[in-house]
Amino acid sequence: MAELTHLDSEGEAHMVDVGDKPVTRREASAASDVIMDVSTLALLRAGNAAKGDVFAVARIAGIQAAKRTAELIPLCHPLPLDRIDVEVTACDELPGVRIVARCAVAGRTGVEMEALTAAAVAALTVYDMLKAVDRDMTIAATRLLTKRGGRSGDYRRENAPA
Amino acid sequence: MAELTHLDSEGEAHMVDVGDKPVTRREASAASDVIMDVSTLALLRAGNAAKGDVFAVARIAGIQAAKRTAELIPLCHPLPLDRIDVEVTACDELPGVRIVARCAVAGRTGVEMEALTAAAVAALTVYDMLKAVDRDMTIAATRLLTKRGGRSGDYRRENAPA
Amino acid sequence: MAELTHLDSEGEAHMVDVGDKPVTRREASAASDVIMDVSTLALLRAGNAAKGDVFAVARIAGIQAAKRTAELIPLCHPLPLDRIDVEVTACDELPGVRIVARCAVAGRTGVEMEALTAAAVAALTVYDMLKAVDRDMTIAATRLLTKRGGRSGDYRRENAPA
Amino acid sequence: MAELTHLDSEGEAHMVDVGDKPVTRREASAASDVIMDVSTLALLRAGNAAKGDVFAVARIAGIQAAKRTAELIPLCHPLPLDRIDVEVTACDELPGVRIVARCAVAGRTGVEMEALTAAAVAALTVYDMLKAVDRDMTIAATRLLTKRGGRSGDYRRENAPA
Amino acid sequence: MAELTHLDSEGEAHMVDVGDKPVTRREASAASDVIMDVSTLALLRAGNAAKGDVFAVARIAGIQAAKRTAELIPLCHPLPLDRIDVEVTACDELPGVRIVARCAVAGRTGVEMEALTAAAVAALTVYDMLKAVDRDMTIAATRLLTKRGGRSGDYRRENAPA
Amino acid sequence: MAELTHLDSEGEAHMVDVGDKPVTRREASAASDVIMDVSTLALLRAGNAAKGDVFAVARIAGIQAAKRTAELIPLCHPLPLDRIDVEVTACDELPGVRIVARCAVAGRTGVEMEALTAAAVAALTVYDMLKAVDRDMTIAATRLLTKRGGRSGDYRRENAPA
Repeated sequence: MAELTHLDSEGEAHMVDVGDKPVTRREASAASDVIMDVSTLALLRAGNAAKGDVFAVARIAGIQAAKRTAELIPLCHPLPLDRIDVEVTACDELPGVRIVARCAVAGRTGVEMEALTAAAVAALTVYDMLKAVDRDMTIAATRLLTKRGGRSGDYRRENAPA
Repeated sequence: MAELTHLDSEGEAHMVDVGDKPVTRREASAASDVIMDVSTLALLRAGNAAKGDVFAVARIAGIQAAKRTAELIPLCHPLPLDRIDVEVTACDELPGVRIVARCAVAGRTGVEMEALTAAAVAALTVYDMLKAVDRDMTIAATRLLTKRGGRSGDYRRENAPA
Repeated sequence: MAELTHLDSEGEAHMVDVGDKPVTRREASAASDVIMDVSTLALLRAGNAAKGDVFAVARIAGIQAAKRTAELIPLCHPLPLDRIDVEVTACDELPGVRIVARCAVAGRTGVEMEALTAAAVAALTVYDMLKAVDRDMTIAATRLLTKRGGRSGDYRRENAPA
Repeated sequence: MAELTHLDSEGEAHMVDVGDKPVTRREASAASDVIMDVSTLALLRAGNAAKGDVFAVARIAGIQAAKRTAELIPLCHPLPLDRIDVEVTACDELPGVRIVARCAVAGRTGVEMEALTAAAVAALTVYDMLKAVDRDMTIAATRLLTKRGGRSGDYRRENAPA
Repeated sequence: MAELTHLDSEGEAHMVDVGDKPVTRREASAASDVIMDVSTLALLRAGNAAKGDVFAVARIAGIQAAKRTAELIPLCHPLPLDRIDVEVTACDELPGVRIVARCAVAGRTGVEMEALTAAAVAALTVYDMLKAVDRDMTIAATRLLTKRGGRSGDYRRENAPA
Repeated sequence: MAELTHLDSEGEAHMVDVGDKPVTRREASAASDVIMDVSTLALLRAGNAAKGDVFAVARIAGIQAAKRTAELIPLCHPLPLDRIDVEVTACDELPGVRIVARCAVAGRTGVEMEALTAAAVAALTVYDMLKAVDRDMTIAATRLLTKRGGRSGDYRRENAPA
């Protein structure tokens, strides 16, 4: 099990010691899509035209969730994030809402989980605000887009936006 | 915007008043799938044979997340849940890991978001514990399976397991 | 010290036993004002014309804070709130931003602190978002407006809006 | 909207990237006053003579709230504070209770919100412990007193104590 | 494993469904002792004579911890506690500090873990405030004293105070 | 009271300013024992043979608690921990379960409280999962084992394992 860094030689979970890693700039971006009926998307757009609170609430929920990643994901390190940015966009081609989250830190470990958590919670928030009209929505493809910094090298998902 | 219950007549977000709804038993189940490379799944199975901590950590993370739903999803009501159950299963047909979460409460509002949050956070936890070997994993199809109780009627997703 | 219900006969703090009080509907409203320079208010209005995110962020922060009242105020009882509503309005007569929060619960104790906490944290959030242009802002007059339900009787602050 | 740093060019809220700012010592102090009836203050002083728990509870609540600032104020950065100090003093000239909070960190961004949050929550706690005898109390003038460190320069409120 | 109610038939952890249990008054008390050098106890008493803040801080920490039991203990149900009371007393016979915590709720499950968590965290807080002078202190005998209400019957530890 | 660093010259609690201390590697380990009836231990071992979830849940609870130490212990500094490791072992000689927790950080203050909190909460979790069969269990001897780094020097409890 040597490859699964969160498990020790006996297969027991622990929070990996990162004390010997250098503090460097780490960045990550992740996305999540809420797929919905075209009529739900139309309703959302109509609401957005007036006030935009669905989008604003989802953005804030995502930002706040990124800060709580270490409380939610048991083996994540607590990290004093330098940046959190969550974009929430209506997309006809889904049809639905696409969320893209970006996080950065100067730290000893990466922020992939922070970006993924922000995207996933923003998506859950969109679901919550629209579920009265459409319970069939699906949160599809919560995924890492990019990762920069750290010993394990950079990462870019195939077909991720530049 | 009358149909979007979380927005008032001016499109502003608020936490809906449920004070006039009766307290009744409410149940919901939700699922989420972590799609991964077959070699990652094989590695996970090998680890599980010994100790199973990936599955146990994901289950606990999901249970704990369900309790924090109202902190994560801004317009959710705080609810003293009566039941939280999270199943984490390796599935060759995905290939990957399927999570099914079930919640119940005696309350004035449903627990769909609690079940969805439990499933999503358990899935993020699986991603976290395997990401050192496979960053291309995708959390696919976080979705509501069933819902029982409450004024809006019961719900069963098409093709959801009975 | 009999009149200070949070202190026992030796003056020590405790969380009052409310187990013998009936569960009834309790409501409260509270307000807080962020007093600012007229030029700051003008800048805020200009921004609001476009997107309104300052107002939306403050509303969400207030709603989320109401749910965490028992974590913040040591002797408050945890309460499963039925309703949280936070209004954030630009006011020329202050000049500044007025916040009004309303909470309700079916419980054994009142929700004054929940309404006050929502108003105070929404006000702090407005301060945070504008402090880069005006550090002299003051959060004035965080106060209870009304209270309904419970043994201690109803309350309406003199001159509170109906 | 360039001057409102928490909003991007489209007016959407985000947590500002501070990754390019140097880590330096940052300090801030803030105050808040709970204005009350002279008879309430007399009752508080009588209690304080015996045990002081109102003051102690408010101090602890303020200290704990400072640590949670980033959870409460959506666009605040999480910061590992080096110092939190909360003073709670009975003041005949108000009449009421004055709270002064001081925070410090070695970080990339200031701690004004941490000091303001500590002062505001300590004030709410005083209100909570005395509300059974005086619901007309007002939390007046939650305000920044001083700020040191960081690119935006030092700040001292006019008439702030040295 | 039928007797271990937190594990299902496959030995997997879950939060037991209590939805079919009646809502009744449940009470529990628990204790914890911080054993210390007599000179440490003397120092604490000297400090207490002046202000009592060590005792007040420990009391508040215990009260706050009781409210967070379901966040700390993974399979505990969230409960809206009706009462939390934490007594912190210097005891020559230990020598050290004895903590007794009492909790009550109208709920479907007991509050033993809430009382035990309050006692344990109050004890940790005493340790924290005195550790600069005595690192050899031990937190001894965190234990349930009494339990009332609920299907499983009442409990009184042998030799527990009446 | 000079020796009690958490109290100032007037005996009031505050979070000590550590801003002038150097950032260095700090480590600590702590232990806690859950003493139980031999039949309870036998039941636990039987369960563990199959799945081990009691041990896994306790480990995760301890890890998560370590991250929340500053929220639980009022005068603790928030610290971005680099390592958390919790070992849970059945011990015939107790008889019962021994928990050993190890924490590390690069910081300005030590992590003794983090290790102690992890051990105490893991022990409470073991109690919770077994209390249906044995309410007489006692959490004995929550204690610091070792401490390394920092101005106050290293510490090793007499008879602590090397």
